[in-house]
Formats: sequence, structure tokens, C-alpha cells
Amino acid sequence: MSKQKKAIVLLSGGLDSATCVAIAKSKGYDVYALSFRYGQRHSVELEAAQKIADKMKVKRHVIADIDLRTFGGSALTDDIDVPKGRDADEMAEDIPITYVPARNTIFLSYALAWAEVLECNDIFIGVNALDYSGYPDCRPEYIAAFEHMANLATKAGVEGSKLTIHTPLIDLSKAEIIKNGTQLGVDYGQTISCYDPDPNGAAACGECDSCLLRKKGFAEAGTPDPTRYQ
Amino acid sequence: MSKQKKAIVLLSGGLDSATCVAIAKSKGYDVYALSFRYGQRHSVELEAAQKIADKMKVKRHVIADIDLRTFGGSALTDDIDVPKGRDADEMAEDIPITYVPARNTIFLSYALAWAEVLECNDIFIGVNALDYSGYPDCRPEYIAAFEHMANLATKAGVEGSKLTIHTPLIDLSKAEIIKNGTQLGVDYGQTISCYDPDPNGAAACGECDSCLLRKKGFAEAGTPDPTRYQ
Repeated sequence: MSKQKKAIVLLSGGLDSATCVAIAKSKGYDVYALSFRYGQRHSVELEAAQKIADKMKVKRHVIADIDLRTFGGSALTDDIDVPKGRDADEMAEDIPITYVPARNTIFLSYALAWAEVLECNDIFIGVNALDYSGYPDCRPEYIAAFEHMANLATKAGVEGSKLTIHTPLIDLSKAEIIKNGTQLGVDYGQTISCYDPDPNGAAACGECDSCLLRKKGFAEAGTPDPTRYQ
Repeated sequence: MSKQKKAIVLLSGGLDSATCVAIAKSKGYDVYALSFRYGQRHSVELEAAQKIADKMKVKRHVIADIDLRTFGGSALTDDIDVPKGRDADEMAEDIPITYVPARNTIFLSYALAWAEVLECNDIFIGVNALDYSGYPDCRPEYIAAFEHMANLATKAGVEGSKLTIHTPLIDLSKAEIIKNGTQLGVDYGQTISCYDPDPNGAAACGECDSCLLRKKGFAEAGTPDPTRYQ
């Protein structure tokens, strides 16, 4: 039996993380997909994550239950209106109200715990610094600092086995991500990016920051957009 | 109304974290205590945490539900025997099997999320590098790396407000911790350190690494040990 390299891939059910799964597989990793039920107002993205995990034949898919509502503080988990119809300048202006406190730090910490148990040295996360600069925990300097901390935190790190946080999308535009993923066979019709989808049919609103960036990405990539909008 | 400084204190229900609450209060902070239900085999330590939080009049006590059993891998959450009767050299020899993967990283990440929401710049954690060197995530270099990462992760950090991870016990012996806490009025009879307590009566085993260090600490401090042993 050949020993396959293992990678943990954070899988939200969105376009970026689905592309990350495809990239990790294309690099020869067995993929262990990790999603979170974190008090989202809608579960359509977790259903999308499950479909993607099945379709892309990941080795294992774990949905970890965490509850950031304990602390409050974000549009994605609280009852604050999601902003609609903003242009790129407005989005870039400040940290978006859809920010979830310490979200990527918590997600990567769970990935680190699983990596220790699996004896896996590679974690993939689909953060992107270019299209959407408002999240502090999507920047390269943040990822580098997390990686450094992680290598001091664990048995593996102490014993000299280096953990790497891979961010294959960090410098790509949405259009480049879509072109890459399309080449690798990602079915984007299964992914969902919307912050405010129709809770019954999983149709996207078409108006929130995330929908607008996604539409623009497909247009610029010259690829048909398979998203179902309301 | 005077504006009080806020601090989040990680509170396990053990001797060290109870001392941390007392130290944070003595420095003038309003204490927000944070405990975790993380698939421990026994809930006596959470009951102790609640008693300590009440007695020490913290501003708020949150118990966050997380489930590290999803990933497996430790004596504190799996069915592996807790080692008994080891001497200090044996304990120091390797990373203890009671290690929980990435535990402090996950705990501090949750504290970071709450700190953002509370607009609080101070987190206290009762790690100790001296008595028990086997945990990688109790070392000063790990804490410094987490603090650096945290300041890149958050709105507060980006906006120039510095988050500090306080480790007031890191260089203290167990005896020194006990002397400090006793001066500050900590009721150590309410704390529990045992890895393998009697599930009904919360009596400590007296034999596990944690009990042995605690006994030694009280003996060296010259303070009566209020612990109830089996």
C-alpha cells in the first residue's frame, strides 16, 4: 500500500474552498475536508460543502460544531442586515460588517488539532488577499504568523516536523481562481458564495458583496456562471 | 460610571487558572471568565469553574461548547489510562499522553474572538513552563507567537490596539503559585487539578501527574492542602 500524503482543506461550500480541494488533489494529497457549523443563519453552505466533498471524493469530511454566537458580533451570525449593491471601492473601504471575530484563527486551530491526530503536515485555506482586502485574517502576514505559532504549538513542531499552511489562492483574482478550478474540473454549480441566500432553494441573492464579486469573476473569466440567482 | 479595564481569563477550574482570576482582579481588571466543555470525561472541573467564578465575582462566565473528540487523540478525552505515580523526571521526559491536540491554541482563539466583541485587550492564561515542561503550548515562545499572530488577526490589531496575552504564572513553581493565590484569598478547596477524579464526589485520585504536582506544591508552600483525596 503506497503511503499517500495527507492534507486538511478548510471547506466552506464556497467557490474558493472548492477550488482549494481540487488544487490539493492535483498536488497528490489525500484530502481531509473540514467544515464548521458555527451558528450561520443558513445551512445551505454546509449542504454545498457536503455535496462538494462527495463529488470530489475526499478521504473524510468532518463538520465540527462550534458556536461563535456565544460571543456575538457579526452579520453572519447576528441579526444585522447584510449590505447589498456595494461597489468594489465601498467593499475595500473598511472591515466588512460580515466579519466574524477571529474566525480564521478558530478554523485554523481546529485544523491544527486534526493535523496532529492525522500526523498531517499540510493545511490548505482558500483565503484571498486581492479581491477582498477587508478581512485582517486573510492577509499573507497573518497566515505566516499563524504558521509560525502552529509550529511552536504542537508535538510535530517540537519534534521537527514542519507544518505548512498553503494559501494557493492568496494572490489570485476571482477570475483566475475560476479559470484554475474549471481546468481542474470543479463543478461551481455546487458551490455557494451568497451571504444572504434564499433559505429554501439555495438561490443566491445576487446583490451582496460576495455575489457581486462572484458574478464579476465569472464575467472576467469568460466562463458561464452556473449560479442560480433569485 | 468609571470605565473598568476588562480582561478575559481562561478558567479551567484548576488551581492555576483560579489564581489567574485573583491576579487579574488584583490588577484592577473586570474579569470575563471563559471555560470550555470539550469532551472531558468528567464534568467536575466545570462545576469547580462555576463555583470559582461565582465566589470570585467575575463579571461574566461563559462556558463554550467545543468538541475535540471529533478528532480523537488524547487521554483526557479518549479511553486511554491516565498514568499514575510517576516522579518529576518521568513527567518531564516526554509530552504527556494527557496532551490534547492544539488545546491552548483553540482556547486562546476563542478568547481572541470574545476579546474582539468585548473590545478587550487583555487575555490571561495560567500556563506554567517550570513545573511541567511537556506541553509545547505552555512555553513562552509559543505564547509570544500566539500574541503576534493575534495582533495581525483582528480589527483591533489592524487599528493599532495591542492585545496582550498575560501569563503571570509562567515562571512560578507550584509552591509560589499557591503562596501568591493564598495571599490574594483564593479558596483552593474549590479548585480541582486531578486528571482522574471520582466522578460522583469530586475527590481527587492523588496519584496522577497533576495530583502529585499539586501535593508537592502545597507541601513546599507550607500551606495546608484543602484537596479531598480518594
